[in-house]
Amino acid sequence: MNLYDATVPVFTKLLSNVEKWLDKAAAFADAKKFDVEVLAVARLAPNQYTFLRQIQAACDQAKYTVAKLTGKDAPSHPDTEKTLAELRQRIQTAVAYLNSVPRDDFNGAEERKVSHAWMGSKWVSGGDYLVHFALPNFHFHLTTAYAILRHNGIDVGKMDYIVELPLQG
Amino acid sequence: MNLYDATVPVFTKLLSNVEKWLDKAAAFADAKKFDVEVLAVARLAPNQYTFLRQIQAACDQAKYTVAKLTGKDAPSHPDTEKTLAELRQRIQTAVAYLNSVPRDDFNGAEERKVSHAWMGSKWVSGGDYLVHFALPNFHFHLTTAYAILRHNGIDVGKMDYIVELPLQG
Repeated sequence: MNLYDATVPVFTKLLSNVEKWLDKAAAFADAKKFDVEVLAVARLAPNQYTFLRQIQAACDQAKYTVAKLTGKDAPSHPDTEKTLAELRQRIQTAVAYLNSVPRDDFNGAEERKVSHAWMGSKWVSGGDYLVHFALPNFHFHLTTAYAILRHNGIDVGKMDYIVELPLQG
Repeated sequence: MNLYDATVPVFTKLLSNVEKWLDKAAAFADAKKFDVEVLAVARLAPNQYTFLRQIQAACDQAKYTVAKLTGKDAPSHPDTEKTLAELRQRIQTAVAYLNSVPRDDFNGAEERKVSHAWMGSKWVSGGDYLVHFALPNFHFHLTTAYAILRHNGIDVGKMDYIVELPLQG
């Protein structure tokens, strides 16, 4: 399977859909008369990343996955966002980067040696990187962000996470 | 990439590791003097699956992924577990099933037509099933289970989710 299909369209769909979670959060805050920005720093535990930081991490994992699998240096996207409006922009920036990488650049990605600084002198194959780290880490942060909203009463359900499938027939 | 490598070893590693979360939960409950079984029915929202049900769902998604990608009927694993000890057994049952399926049975899985009853008369390709539904849904339930423990004070961190990578070099 070409790893483009396992990454760019999936990350694009799931990250873009976070804006719909933010729409639901804004509507809920409006109905309940609280400042929606309190959700930006909400967490499930005091030593856990905030909602905003979870989404930044998901954006970064999507970016690094595409960069590493295609042998590029990832662009720098500093974690400067403070508001949910800024977070929407960060998502759009990440998605624009993902979609700037041509499909052909993923040829041979499964066998490419992938390393991060935290791996020291070690590496993993592109295929192993994708399924053992990149996708688990992406979903870990995205689901945690979802769970923070869920815990705070936002009316999101699992299909707001999965979004529509490329059904055929 | 052979979809065996994207499924059986990853699901096996991540599901088996849940037993280490349960060990940490048991130690925490012992130290704080509460019945660890209260965690089995813990949730982050009143209309959310419990911890136990999240793990059952992750086990089922792993099972269905392997069955659907290899064109088999999945075995029935009824959701009868009530205790964390029973949940450990459920995990072991799921993992044993995953590892009963030969690698060669995944040949051509990417192009296989996959359907669930909830898709009606529609289907998705095996590759799309994996990356658009099976892996997101698996990680959604597993991360939510993790988040329930995290929220309840269990000392788990992200590497308890990701577990070790198949590093080389």
